Amino acid sequence: MTTHYSTPLHQLPEWLAYTDAIHTSCINTNHLRLLKVAGLTLDLSAQRYSPEIEKAIEQLLTARQLTTHRELLLNGGIANPIENRPAWHTMLRQPRPLPEVAEERNRVLEFVRRTDSNRRWRNIVHIGIGGSDWGVRLATAAFGYAGTWRNIRYVANIDGHAIEAGLAGLDPHDTLIVVATKSFTTAETLANAERALEWLKAAKVPNPYNNIIAITAKPDVALAWGVPKHNIFKFWSWVGGRFSLWSAVGVAAGLTVGSNVLAGLQSGAHAMDQHFLNAPIAENAPIQLAMADIANRSILGYGSRNLAVYDSRLANLIPYLQQLEMESLGKSVDLDGNPIEVPTGSVVWGMPGTDAQHTFFQWLHQGTDGAPVDFIVCQKADHRYTDHHRQLLAHCLAQREALLNGKTEEEAYQENLNAGMEEERARLIAKHRKLAGGKPSNLIVLPQLTPFALGALLALYEHKVFVEGLVWGLNPFDQWGVELGKVLAKDIEKALASGQTDLQTHNSSTSYWIEQFREE
Amino acid sequence: MTTHYSTPLHQLPEWLAYTDAIHTSCINTNHLRLLKVAGLTLDLSAQRYSPEIEKAIEQLLTARQLTTHRELLLNGGIANPIENRPAWHTMLRQPRPLPEVAEERNRVLEFVRRTDSNRRWRNIVHIGIGGSDWGVRLATAAFGYAGTWRNIRYVANIDGHAIEAGLAGLDPHDTLIVVATKSFTTAETLANAERALEWLKAAKVPNPYNNIIAITAKPDVALAWGVPKHNIFKFWSWVGGRFSLWSAVGVAAGLTVGSNVLAGLQSGAHAMDQHFLNAPIAENAPIQLAMADIANRSILGYGSRNLAVYDSRLANLIPYLQQLEMESLGKSVDLDGNPIEVPTGSVVWGMPGTDAQHTFFQWLHQGTDGAPVDFIVCQKADHRYTDHHRQLLAHCLAQREALLNGKTEEEAYQENLNAGMEEERARLIAKHRKLAGGKPSNLIVLPQLTPFALGALLALYEHKVFVEGLVWGLNPFDQWGVELGKVLAKDIEKALASGQTDLQTHNSSTSYWIEQFREE
Repeated sequence: MTTHYSTPLHQLPEWLAYTDAIHTSCINTNHLRLLKVAGLTLDLSAQRYSPEIEKAIEQLLTARQLTTHRELLLNGGIANPIENRPAWHTMLRQPRPLPEVAEERNRVLEFVRRTDSNRRWRNIVHIGIGGSDWGVRLATAAFGYAGTWRNIRYVANIDGHAIEAGLAGLDPHDTLIVVATKSFTTAETLANAERALEWLKAAKVPNPYNNIIAITAKPDVALAWGVPKHNIFKFWSWVGGRFSLWSAVGVAAGLTVGSNVLAGLQSGAHAMDQHFLNAPIAENAPIQLAMADIANRSILGYGSRNLAVYDSRLANLIPYLQQLEMESLGKSVDLDGNPIEVPTGSVVWGMPGTDAQHTFFQWLHQGTDGAPVDFIVCQKADHRYTDHHRQLLAHCLAQREALLNGKTEEEAYQENLNAGMEEERARLIAKHRKLAGGKPSNLIVLPQLTPFALGALLALYEHKVFVEGLVWGLNPFDQWGVELGKVLAKDIEKALASGQTDLQTHNSSTSYWIEQFREE
Repeated sequence: MTTHYSTPLHQLPEWLAYTDAIHTSCINTNHLRLLKVAGLTLDLSAQRYSPEIEKAIEQLLTARQLTTHRELLLNGGIANPIENRPAWHTMLRQPRPLPEVAEERNRVLEFVRRTDSNRRWRNIVHIGIGGSDWGVRLATAAFGYAGTWRNIRYVANIDGHAIEAGLAGLDPHDTLIVVATKSFTTAETLANAERALEWLKAAKVPNPYNNIIAITAKPDVALAWGVPKHNIFKFWSWVGGRFSLWSAVGVAAGLTVGSNVLAGLQSGAHAMDQHFLNAPIAENAPIQLAMADIANRSILGYGSRNLAVYDSRLANLIPYLQQLEMESLGKSVDLDGNPIEVPTGSVVWGMPGTDAQHTFFQWLHQGTDGAPVDFIVCQKADHRYTDHHRQLLAHCLAQREALLNGKTEEEAYQENLNAGMEEERARLIAKHRKLAGGKPSNLIVLPQLTPFALGALLALYEHKVFVEGLVWGLNPFDQWGVELGKVLAKDIEKALASGQTDLQTHNSSTSYWIEQFREE
């Protein structure tokens, strides 16, 4: 007996209809298509659109039982059937959450309030990796980009240079160590926490565990490790690591840029949750974003999507979304374990603009593949350099238009002649200056970089990912693929330390390097 | 008349022979293939190999006139025919360079020496973008990762938050502004330099231009802007922006992590240049790296390549190589302007491991496409946490092996049963735990992170890119694709400021946003 969670996508008539509708449509540059949600504007004008597409989306999502699954997600049903648990991160941002969620939220606020009023901890070292890291970095850099009263450092990597740099030069007596790990078994995080504890002890900090707080779904394990009970903040097994910014994991951001940031993020995300639940399909921003992405990926064949974030404060949005999208959608079997016959989640990569323009936009304009782009920008800046913001906005719009319009060889040729080139050279250079154009993109405009707007933006992408998982028929809430590497690493680590492991189990190259790296 | 720089690749019999050789070969996990160069070891064992491939590479490169073009490159010939100039960055790292290069190199060393002995400039703000930015960030973070006596900040983006954050909290009287721009017309850099100058003036710094140095190929323009002559360092039109770390552009790294770092980078790069010039093809590291990349990209169809840098100090290697590779190889016409009929340069993306394992390795293991990976690691660490380094090395080897070996459904099923799962669930979960494997990778081992080793590594990639350009028949030294966006941006910027531009020239969406963003 198999479980039959979902019909294979390529067998659905509604999928074929969507495919047809995409292939027979084009990007209409005279058509303006905007969705306004929670203060954000999503401009989908540079994606394919037709009434047939709109109809096909409705029918495909009906076939995929959007309504049922969305309610399962938002009401704490078993949205993650493979691991038999909810994926209920939306609960964490409800205005009136479950009592246990409310209690923990209040404990965080109270902790921040007390710490602030005591002017404790000039330095914070946040230790966590992946989902326990990127969200905190994102929120802190977004709202504390020009410095904060408290210094914050992040230590994620097992690389010893990371913890060395994280602790270097800080006063251990005035440093709070924040240890964030859902399982309280994450190898990197526990090893780095041990180093931090040794550092506190070496400095003869009177009660070193008082300088440590833990955020975890396993409070008992944290307690056994030594963290005092009142310094442990809890979240729940039904919160995936890549959705944990909404939990107490954000506490270091609260201490650095203020707990109003945490509250604002939650409110914005909740507003997007409500929109996702209630808006009709044609006006539903996460759904339309998802369907455009699916069209570009599975139907038009783009292998990657670029994030062009025109805001230097949002550099960490890129790794944050890489994790959200690629860990969720980097699967090739459906819920029943059958191969999915269309390409699923693409590479997601990017860099803040305008830096990106001087780094790899050449490739976007003239490379073989090109890629769809998400342009993200704030209408209003928080600095006083009007000219700079005007240029930033102009670059964002200009790159988007250039990627769509391109330039013909003939246009380039005429320009070359007008610039005084001789005919033969004008012809050659025109071939080099020609731009294919036709690249789809999204433009997402935030009114200003507020916690509310950022929260709404993150939830927009979360629900987009959920819809893509639903259409592709995969489980966006597990990550089985990371398991094997961890198991092999333990084995190789033992071999490096002791030389006891049987090298026959490894291939020639691994065996060679184990010999080379082995400690004498 | 066309120029006939190169025969179209797909018409070359040698290309078809290489294609055949790749298709009829496999990755032999019992075969160890190592190249040792300038202290680095390049392990190509997880790429396809056969005697036929080796022969086909020799013949293809002969057909592409490797020897002639390589000498042109290294001897300052016209390696960039489209722009009619050399691409002579290798000259900058010669032990006995041209007199003018030697003079400028000495001026930089003397400047650093004098500044150090005067203990001047507690703070440095390095203003530059793209090629005038990433190299300095890379060198400084690599060797100053745990802090340096001088604070260094980087300002690249036109986003006003970047310059605001770059200057925030610094003492203008003790801050050196470094302005790096080849043309001295880069919009971002000049605007940011203006802001920095205003900031110095507002603080009544006695002679603000004395706090500014410029590095440029247009010293006259810098002089006219106000930088005193003795504060201008020169490089040459034959140095591409993405190769300018080897020039005076590195001065801020010299001031921060020592001029021995600059000298070491140059020595290491020069050692790689000599290897590239002299080593036979089969043992030539840049060539073999290039040919493996071409096979994965143009023959096996991978759309991206991942950089898994197992060293937290080398995070900036990723944007550095993104620029080097994607700006150089993101072209789809050959030197004659004819379309190249095979896919050229891929997306290059990455993140330091182990962070990457918790961010997107799921996708590498189980996503639809997967990607070849460059693993980069240092055998010896510079910290005292032995356990951490052992784990780091183990993770690097383990991920590489997991990507190659994968896990069969049957293996996963047996493991599930052994773990006590009921049969039906064991079967379902096995389908989710299965890993396809078969992913190619390179492993590059540095003995230790020295300036020499990093210099050799960067030159390895530079020459790899050159060889790829040669095989594909494209010009890796221009970047015509970035032009149109800049022109459009100027036009849109004017429209935003004045409302004078004819909106008819823009599409509906751009016009809408110009109206929205226009200053009232």
